[in-house]
Amino acid sequence: MYTSETNVRVRYAETDKMGYLYHGNYAQFYEMGRVEMIRSLGLSYKELEDKIGVGMPVMYIETRYVRPAFYDDLLTVKTKVKKMPHDFLRFFVEIFNEKGKLISGAKVKLCFIEMKTMKRVSCPEALSSRLAVHFQ
Amino acid sequence: MYTSETNVRVRYAETDKMGYLYHGNYAQFYEMGRVEMIRSLGLSYKELEDKIGVGMPVMYIETRYVRPAFYDDLLTVKTKVKKMPHDFLRFFVEIFNEKGKLISGAKVKLCFIEMKTMKRVSCPEALSSRLAVHFQ
Amino acid sequence: MYTSETNVRVRYAETDKMGYLYHGNYAQFYEMGRVEMIRSLGLSYKELEDKIGVGMPVMYIETRYVRPAFYDDLLTVKTKVKKMPHDFLRFFVEIFNEKGKLISGAKVKLCFIEMKTMKRVSCPEALSSRLAVHFQ
Amino acid sequence: MYTSETNVRVRYAETDKMGYLYHGNYAQFYEMGRVEMIRSLGLSYKELEDKIGVGMPVMYIETRYVRPAFYDDLLTVKTKVKKMPHDFLRFFVEIFNEKGKLISGAKVKLCFIEMKTMKRVSCPEALSSRLAVHFQ
Repeated sequence: MYTSETNVRVRYAETDKMGYLYHGNYAQFYEMGRVEMIRSLGLSYKELEDKIGVGMPVMYIETRYVRPAFYDDLLTVKTKVKKMPHDFLRFFVEIFNEKGKLISGAKVKLCFIEMKTMKRVSCPEALSSRLAVHFQ
Repeated sequence: MYTSETNVRVRYAETDKMGYLYHGNYAQFYEMGRVEMIRSLGLSYKELEDKIGVGMPVMYIETRYVRPAFYDDLLTVKTKVKKMPHDFLRFFVEIFNEKGKLISGAKVKLCFIEMKTMKRVSCPEALSSRLAVHFQ
Repeated sequence: MYTSETNVRVRYAETDKMGYLYHGNYAQFYEMGRVEMIRSLGLSYKELEDKIGVGMPVMYIETRYVRPAFYDDLLTVKTKVKKMPHDFLRFFVEIFNEKGKLISGAKVKLCFIEMKTMKRVSCPEALSSRLAVHFQ
Repeated sequence: MYTSETNVRVRYAETDKMGYLYHGNYAQFYEMGRVEMIRSLGLSYKELEDKIGVGMPVMYIETRYVRPAFYDDLLTVKTKVKKMPHDFLRFFVEIFNEKGKLISGAKVKLCFIEMKTMKRVSCPEALSSRLAVHFQ
């Protein structure tokens, strides 16, 4: 299992008239969790796309909204990978507020595509080798 | 069962560097589907919040991303309610492109809250009575 | 002078905790005004980018926020071109609410770039010829 | 004069199909600049709204787009106040990329409103007293 954490502060733009972090914006927070996890492995998602030529489109997201988050909350995004990726990579994400209360839980499933052809490929070695260290 | 349809055109702002409609923006399209369904019943979600005093926060969304959508695509959002709401209201949404191909499918579960107290309530009569006509 | 109009309904996602259409979202509404103006000329901005190979990055925007707009408001975006474009194209945009009250006024200045090289070019003939009809 | 700096990383969601940070998202970056400036003064914009009861709607923004910013760029937002606020507060914002190149410059003018009544007021003492220290 590999776990990482990052913090995101709720922007005014991200609230809605109910005063909550708009539910549709959570997907961006999950993405920041994934991106910072990849960076913590010594790679960057940008390099993955631009140098290695592999993108990771999202295929599936399941989100539970447990509690509202509010303007200016400094949220903690905890991201886990539980299994080594092959054709797919699954992330388990939880978002917590400053009091440590769970805001949201999500499962996100991505695949890998070659950017040039937009065809499916398996997990690039640059990513799998860096993850493998944590799965031995 | 009650079904409604609405159209949404993909904005430039909603695309990402992969050239796709950014996956995190789908939640807004599902919402437009729900909002236009409620309008088609002779009510508006705005009235529900502002006059009847009941809001509908999202509790759960499950999204499958089947095909990418692209800039300027005129998408069709098909929204279904399959069961009369009591404590919860579940929407089944499908998004199609201009060729009739499925872009995305989603299940969205909402609850009802009294706007003043932010406490849970059951489905307000103004909405349930308008839906009931279609479930007899 | 060439003028066109389009309508946009304010989404829940676009409101903020003050209950207003978030000010940062106006730029998207101006863009929809431009895009629908180009469509009204018998061209589309998508074709301009994908077939003619010319993009129109924004260089400058000046926005006055006159009145707030609210959730579910059906706004009218009025877009004007006052001079034939050469190296630049300037749009004058006004947004009105359903009561005909001015919400916002903006000036938007764009240039033209060849998509392949990202180098500046002058207004493509496909656009200038269609505008010229209205400037004689 | 009072100056502050904050960093913001460009999200995937914030790019567009041209591969640029979408121009309409700059307003959010200017806002983060203002919000972090206020925080650096020992206040928070959230407190200003929720405890002091004063909001700061944007009245005017002028933006020059100098260079594109790209996905994953870590931008620096420099925010300046050049004059003590009375009825209005003007911010001068510049955004730089990691190479120190100017991405964008903006002027943002805000007013003050009492949140309860939505009526115009002058700059609340909690903010003006903290700024005054830097203008002597």
